[in-house]
Amino acid sequence: MTATSEPAATFAAEKRPRSRTPVERAWLSTGPGALPVRESLGGLFDPGSVAIVGASENRQKWGYWLACGALAGRDRRQVYLVNHRATTLLGARSWRSLADLPEAPELVVVATPPGSVRREVEQGLEAGARYFVVISSGVGEPPSSRDELDLAELVRSRGARLLGPNCMGVVDHDAALQLCWGAVPAGQVGLVSQSGNLALEIGRLLGRAGQGLSRLVSIGNQRDIDVAEALLSLVWHEPTRAIAAYVEDFRDGRRLARALAAARAAGKPVLLLAAGRSAASGRAAKSHTGALVSSQDVVDAAVAQAGALRLDTAGQLVDAAVTLLAPGMRGGGRVAIVADGGGQGALAADALAAAGLSVPPLRDATVSRLRRLLPAAAGVTNPVDLAGAGESDIGSYASVVSALLTAPDADAVVLSGYFGDYSATSPQLAEAESAVAGALADASAAAGRPVVVHSMATTETPALRLLRRRGIPVFERIEHAAAAIASAARWAALSPADMPPFALAPPAGDGSYQRTRELLAGYGLSFPAARFAADADAAAEAAAEIGYPVVLKAMGLAHKTEAGGVALNLRDEPALRAALAAMRRRTRSGAYCVEAMVRRPDSVELIMGVRQDPSFGPVAMVGIGGITAELLADTVVALAPLTRDRARRMLESLRQAALLTGWRGAESVDLDAAAAALEAIARAGAEHPEYSELEVNPVLAHPGGATALDAHGVLAASPLPGPHSGRR
Amino acid sequence: MTATSEPAATFAAEKRPRSRTPVERAWLSTGPGALPVRESLGGLFDPGSVAIVGASENRQKWGYWLACGALAGRDRRQVYLVNHRATTLLGARSWRSLADLPEAPELVVVATPPGSVRREVEQGLEAGARYFVVISSGVGEPPSSRDELDLAELVRSRGARLLGPNCMGVVDHDAALQLCWGAVPAGQVGLVSQSGNLALEIGRLLGRAGQGLSRLVSIGNQRDIDVAEALLSLVWHEPTRAIAAYVEDFRDGRRLARALAAARAAGKPVLLLAAGRSAASGRAAKSHTGALVSSQDVVDAAVAQAGALRLDTAGQLVDAAVTLLAPGMRGGGRVAIVADGGGQGALAADALAAAGLSVPPLRDATVSRLRRLLPAAAGVTNPVDLAGAGESDIGSYASVVSALLTAPDADAVVLSGYFGDYSATSPQLAEAESAVAGALADASAAAGRPVVVHSMATTETPALRLLRRRGIPVFERIEHAAAAIASAARWAALSPADMPPFALAPPAGDGSYQRTRELLAGYGLSFPAARFAADADAAAEAAAEIGYPVVLKAMGLAHKTEAGGVALNLRDEPALRAALAAMRRRTRSGAYCVEAMVRRPDSVELIMGVRQDPSFGPVAMVGIGGITAELLADTVVALAPLTRDRARRMLESLRQAALLTGWRGAESVDLDAAAAALEAIARAGAEHPEYSELEVNPVLAHPGGATALDAHGVLAASPLPGPHSGRR
Repeated sequence: MTATSEPAATFAAEKRPRSRTPVERAWLSTGPGALPVRESLGGLFDPGSVAIVGASENRQKWGYWLACGALAGRDRRQVYLVNHRATTLLGARSWRSLADLPEAPELVVVATPPGSVRREVEQGLEAGARYFVVISSGVGEPPSSRDELDLAELVRSRGARLLGPNCMGVVDHDAALQLCWGAVPAGQVGLVSQSGNLALEIGRLLGRAGQGLSRLVSIGNQRDIDVAEALLSLVWHEPTRAIAAYVEDFRDGRRLARALAAARAAGKPVLLLAAGRSAASGRAAKSHTGALVSSQDVVDAAVAQAGALRLDTAGQLVDAAVTLLAPGMRGGGRVAIVADGGGQGALAADALAAAGLSVPPLRDATVSRLRRLLPAAAGVTNPVDLAGAGESDIGSYASVVSALLTAPDADAVVLSGYFGDYSATSPQLAEAESAVAGALADASAAAGRPVVVHSMATTETPALRLLRRRGIPVFERIEHAAAAIASAARWAALSPADMPPFALAPPAGDGSYQRTRELLAGYGLSFPAARFAADADAAAEAAAEIGYPVVLKAMGLAHKTEAGGVALNLRDEPALRAALAAMRRRTRSGAYCVEAMVRRPDSVELIMGVRQDPSFGPVAMVGIGGITAELLADTVVALAPLTRDRARRMLESLRQAALLTGWRGAESVDLDAAAAALEAIARAGAEHPEYSELEVNPVLAHPGGATALDAHGVLAASPLPGPHSGRR
Repeated sequence: MTATSEPAATFAAEKRPRSRTPVERAWLSTGPGALPVRESLGGLFDPGSVAIVGASENRQKWGYWLACGALAGRDRRQVYLVNHRATTLLGARSWRSLADLPEAPELVVVATPPGSVRREVEQGLEAGARYFVVISSGVGEPPSSRDELDLAELVRSRGARLLGPNCMGVVDHDAALQLCWGAVPAGQVGLVSQSGNLALEIGRLLGRAGQGLSRLVSIGNQRDIDVAEALLSLVWHEPTRAIAAYVEDFRDGRRLARALAAARAAGKPVLLLAAGRSAASGRAAKSHTGALVSSQDVVDAAVAQAGALRLDTAGQLVDAAVTLLAPGMRGGGRVAIVADGGGQGALAADALAAAGLSVPPLRDATVSRLRRLLPAAAGVTNPVDLAGAGESDIGSYASVVSALLTAPDADAVVLSGYFGDYSATSPQLAEAESAVAGALADASAAAGRPVVVHSMATTETPALRLLRRRGIPVFERIEHAAAAIASAARWAALSPADMPPFALAPPAGDGSYQRTRELLAGYGLSFPAARFAADADAAAEAAAEIGYPVVLKAMGLAHKTEAGGVALNLRDEPALRAALAAMRRRTRSGAYCVEAMVRRPDSVELIMGVRQDPSFGPVAMVGIGGITAELLADTVVALAPLTRDRARRMLESLRQAALLTGWRGAESVDLDAAAAALEAIARAGAEHPEYSELEVNPVLAHPGGATALDAHGVLAASPLPGPHSGRR
């Protein structure tokens, strides 16, 4: 953002979902796996009445916490405690069975042994319940997946909905609904979690940071309500300003991506934790939920494409959430640093730069202003070094930070050092320090720019409490501040939701080179002239027609080059015939392709392809080819199909992208033609799922265009299984 | 370390400096900048008497804190408070002047305005003081560098020593010496800091982690005692088990590297914070200390070569220190994870893998053992998922962790999740939880392997306190645990201290291609045959002698290739004469070199060079050459000269090292010849500082050897300034 442009609305200020764009509608409602277009789970989060089956007075039991939580909301709704052996519990009336209730409970929470879950749910359905939350770790005696699936089907067949089993419950602070173990702090972050303990950890860390949860949905085994639908419920949930999610089982990845895109369109950042980056975590996820773990580059691409942020740990997620919700935060990447010493300033600058942020020099006018505010020994570059000014006048913190917040030099100000701890060592400074904290929050609000504090305090002082209450992020490590601001900048910089619609085409592939080539050519990919021939005479005739030099390829081989089935740059007929004879001996092939030999100055070899991901469907890939392709693995992926613009941005985001645009005096390749080639391949793969994989290696990108010099298709062994096929 | 090998001594167990190796002696004592070979600052840290000049009763003044700290040590030494206007202070006798003291104070601490510092030091010298610590932020009225330098010279000329000015004092807990602001927690970490606030921050974070400082040396402006000597004092300091340092001004980098190598040889990890990775922090360091900031790759290389670890933030440093000091820590990289749920286990595995550690599958015997300890729902792969076992029996944490500590599967165990917080929510579990904490520490000690805990606790519970007291690292974020274990593994894996000795040679360079080539050839670098010629006839004669094809180069040009001063692959005399004529027109050069044209199959172009770093002296560099050299910047540096072994390891650590060892069916290049070439260039640069830079681009590495195809030398403008020239 330049200094003169109209400031964008800050993240925290965007209170209402915007109306949906056409692109977003496509994400949301294309195909059979489409998401609901309006809130579908209202009664789950704010039921008129709730029944707790398995309510208990034993603090070691779930039934105790659920009952207490439910009773805490009885000003808002009718609460029925159900226990087969009690008539009063926790000072409230208790019922022997769901069948005995005087009215239909809208929501039934089941926390009984797995063997009795089915019976309780049946009774609940009889009684007219609309929602079930099953805490029990399984269904059936012994528990089985089959019994879980049957239960979900039963519930759905009655028009009711099921959360779980094996979930940790539901919390909605706005609706005074607290159905989980213990207490979670209230705040503006909605959380969907596939792990109970991670939900607890995130809740605690949010609480320490002065934030908390607006709503918690523990999805457990997702037998009916899945992560995508739970996420969508948060998009419609007014008090939720940012969304956190822990997912280890992507199932229908496109459906999840749609929910993420809907959140983005509503201006709500989604911060996603997804395990599976390492082999070991793949093992863990498998043993935990039996999840099929998607390829990590595909997960990353899908999440980014849908406009969401992927984080790696609970701590990172919480830091990012608090920072995205900070007053004035718009996600700009230019940061001004105010530090209590040269050392802390320098390390702060390094940490911010390492996180990808910029710490620009200050403009002369700003420097002059700071000089007037600070003693001569202070450093008035960026980072600003207070050099003891804060110790001699604690008000310096506020005046210097304010000066930077109102100057156009930076998008955010980081205050790093002693501030926040004066009252701990000098109690007489407590009041003054809190006043400065208030002034910092006021200055941020007035300037519409965020301030982020890194404090050396090791205890929670009144000043820090005040800052947190006002939404100012406070970190105890500078690297956390840096990572969090960088996350906000990354979120702001994502360009989501440009997935073009597509429809399946009639299957056209047979796995042969010829058909694959024709298919891709049909989508607009350029190939050199080619003729197919069964013997030397036909090949010679083809070559004469095409013109020498030519390339000869043997057909019907899995790995042509490795098997000696490719001969390049054949200059005349004798060379062609000799190559064909040698090739026939080596490969025993009875079919050949003769192609024009293409050589272009300043060309760059690219690899392009598309494959069917079991969870996310068609995924396009482009990379730099050549001899070091495998070694450098310089590739990018994105969900297919692609817009031309996204295809071009994929090319531009390659590490070696400079090779494409006139490296060391070469002419630039035709980037648009290369993007068009990638777009064509991506669409072909998306519309032809009979190919599990299409690869074009190389695509020769050159100043005049982009030419595919080979093509390789792998047919899918069988129709794709699971929710993915359902989506189609 | 394999399961059957003899376990190495753990880091914490190596209590005494080993005797020095020949290599280490070379690092320590070569040249005029050599470090002291025995403790030189004993009286600074444990003086028989101390005088505080500027002692005060005003808590806002340094003189108050220094006086209180000094008085706290009066059982061990005589304390003299000096204040020109008081006769008693803080209940103790106060003296009007240093001249009045009844004996020579061994150490004098000066905390008066800059204008009076010189006078106080002079009086101290008169009185016979041996050490001065100058807290005052400068010397002179107005303060000036000149006055600081003069003061240091005065002190040294009397055989005394000076710390500061502008320092934050000295603490030595073992010697009951506490001369700084506030209090710092006691522990096993020695700290040298160029920034007072960072010293405070590190001290606080160590205190929170259950560790603390053994000795603190705030070096301020380093006018006499510098960072290297202060570091060395910690090498000799028995209670110091690990060393932390914040440095922003490297001055004589070789001298610092020697101190780091001495610490390594003593088995004491040095954890170094050094600002300057970003442009902004370079600005900050400059404004703070006027420091010349070295190139960051050189700093990294020098620190690693000396066997020390560079960290980026105070938090990272403290995490690494605590973990290196953990019982049983030997730095192995295989980690077993025990988690309270599949989610936390999976994210822990990802965090550890991202940090470069391995989370290997467990052996069958270990899996069987875990299966006997855990319920059926638990995950007994790595990560181990307790799946609620800890909740039903808190003893599970100890039994499962013990089983892994005694199994040979991993070098360390990480426990991640709820443990440490049971007592906070269930006070009745407090005793049991502490017992488990004790059992964990016992198991670690018995097994000689470390356990590292990540706890969701947000308060300090008795169990966590016990763990920390026993030296078990406890983290509140899994990524901190991962980074800290990775730091320990990285420290253990460094191969330090193989800097070969070298001596300066008589200057031999004149910057010409011919002399540079001769110089490098004299060090053993292979060049193709070459003849120098002034005209076409001489060139033709030279080519006939060498044999066609040849290369023709025009002499006397700064950038031969760019100026059209190189013609490759000239096949016969007419081609040579034509090339020379064209070249003469273009370049107006009157001198040429005719060289044999070298082409080798399976060759790889390398760039090798050596340059004079203003702080670290000669630095060798090697990188992959070719068209993408600049783009990929695949280079490594190391202090020169090099052993053959280090040269080889530099080649092997290139990102694209696989290109050298038979990539995609090529023959492997002669790595030993390439290493020898690098060794030769590095030694030439080290022994000939009249060259500020020597570059050989390309060195053609091939299966038969390594051949230098060009050479370029830049003469230093003038003799090198500063401490670096002193070293020679």
